[in-house]
Amino acid sequence: MSQRQYAIIGTGAIGGYYGGRLQQAGFDVHFLLKSNYSVVKTQGLKIDSCDGDFTLPVVKAYNDPSQIPPCDVAVVALKATQNPILSEILPQILKADGLVLLLQNGLGTEETIANIVPNPIVGGLCFICSNKVAPDYIRHLEYGSIKMAQYCPDGGVAGITDDLKGLAADFQKAGIQVNLSEDLLLTRWEKLAWNIPFNGLSALLKATTTEIMENPQARSLAEALAGEVAEGAKANDRALSSEFISNLMARTAKMKPYNTSMKLDRDAKRPLEVEAIFGNPLRLAKEKGIELPRIETLYQQLKFLDQQNSQG
Amino acid sequence: MSQRQYAIIGTGAIGGYYGGRLQQAGFDVHFLLKSNYSVVKTQGLKIDSCDGDFTLPVVKAYNDPSQIPPCDVAVVALKATQNPILSEILPQILKADGLVLLLQNGLGTEETIANIVPNPIVGGLCFICSNKVAPDYIRHLEYGSIKMAQYCPDGGVAGITDDLKGLAADFQKAGIQVNLSEDLLLTRWEKLAWNIPFNGLSALLKATTTEIMENPQARSLAEALAGEVAEGAKANDRALSSEFISNLMARTAKMKPYNTSMKLDRDAKRPLEVEAIFGNPLRLAKEKGIELPRIETLYQQLKFLDQQNSQG
Repeated sequence: MSQRQYAIIGTGAIGGYYGGRLQQAGFDVHFLLKSNYSVVKTQGLKIDSCDGDFTLPVVKAYNDPSQIPPCDVAVVALKATQNPILSEILPQILKADGLVLLLQNGLGTEETIANIVPNPIVGGLCFICSNKVAPDYIRHLEYGSIKMAQYCPDGGVAGITDDLKGLAADFQKAGIQVNLSEDLLLTRWEKLAWNIPFNGLSALLKATTTEIMENPQARSLAEALAGEVAEGAKANDRALSSEFISNLMARTAKMKPYNTSMKLDRDAKRPLEVEAIFGNPLRLAKEKGIELPRIETLYQQLKFLDQQNSQG
Repeated sequence: MSQRQYAIIGTGAIGGYYGGRLQQAGFDVHFLLKSNYSVVKTQGLKIDSCDGDFTLPVVKAYNDPSQIPPCDVAVVALKATQNPILSEILPQILKADGLVLLLQNGLGTEETIANIVPNPIVGGLCFICSNKVAPDYIRHLEYGSIKMAQYCPDGGVAGITDDLKGLAADFQKAGIQVNLSEDLLLTRWEKLAWNIPFNGLSALLKATTTEIMENPQARSLAEALAGEVAEGAKANDRALSSEFISNLMARTAKMKPYNTSMKLDRDAKRPLEVEAIFGNPLRLAKEKGIELPRIETLYQQLKFLDQQNSQG
């Protein structure tokens, strides 16, 4: 299996880290880049990691997807705000029997991809604190596991598939912990229970996770937001227990101070992943007749900030 | 009646403007100041106003309430966050038959004052865009009327009292439009329907009222917040009609771009009036068994910012 070819679409904090680990383990990895193409093409990638630093002096870097050979796995690690370019990229870089691994937060993007290519799709939720600190330099601070589940149309449950087992074997070979889930939609709602409160509040309040957890009102709001995610999940026939929420809060309290990706995006005046993480779950809940007023409030506030950001 | 003596407690954008107008009209006005005492003592007050600029080269300025002669009317125009000093000040400066005029937003401060002095209390809600731009310099941009109503314990309705008529006559003599209300609690909830969305969101999002109104999501959130204020009012047996809310939104859309006092407080790292404007209405609603999740969300976010502000 070590001959499987990987294409990494989006070589940032996520794609650069995991793609780098796969190349380090001997896989043939092709990195698609845009603004950082020339730096990475000439200098490779440097990765500081809590699991061991490493450098890749040479990587196969591309700025044109048509130059990438057809791959077994296309790893989508773009910001969700960049997903519109997938319709051009994905059909060019996949083998006929290749599969898509979507490493992104939020909801609804598997549906988008299924409308672009007929290939199987696996969703991966990354539990990692990782930042891109320079064009060719990624800093992996904490955690690093991926929870993977196979996409099934209409919110169905795919179970543990051979696609999942194959990906897990590759990633584990690269030293990455993989947990498999039978139910992608459940796994996505579980991840939202962290991303909605913590990405949202950290971007809005310009705060680290630690600052949120140490302020009684912000912490209580984070927990109430996670509780509303559980209501949205329930409306979609997925159960997040109150124990799940309290464990999530306890784990976050123990994390090192973390600037979430959405906070970094706001600071850098990049587009915020508001629709994938907030808008799509809200719409899915609304379709089931459920109001999530705290999440909607945060969504509306972030839409305002996103517009201000884009106006410079 | 022009001999009535006024004490202005808090000579800022509100107290400085209205106190200045009263002095301009011939009333004997005593201004209590703290940080700006020496500037105002030596230079008086300069007021640029959309209703006519004026200067008061000499004003009776004090930094020690015990030096103020007993007055007929004590006008409380402090920030609500400074209210703890009232228990020292009010008993010293009121005639036995004097009354208190509270020019402050939010809920619950009349109760605080009633526990300090036995005198009658009138609540005044200022519909004014006014900022203090220098210690002795106030800029009155737009509007300027005050809606006054007499305090009655336990949320009762006092009606149109002689105290109200006397105050209205004085303020109207000073060129200030006064509207009288029979029902202080209704009037306070009506004012909250503006202050909660616009003070809150302008401080949180660092935005003017115009920026809020021009962003579809922020505008929609402002209207939803005003709707929750109406729910809180209803739980306290006060009705704000949906026409009231839509008129309020339409009026705000027509306002010149305005930085609310809470936004200016945040910018200047001063304490935010979160408890008076958000905390007290929330508690009053909760006592009646009503959840106001959007207002609570904003309250928790502002408490976080207030703590960050106070930490410098």
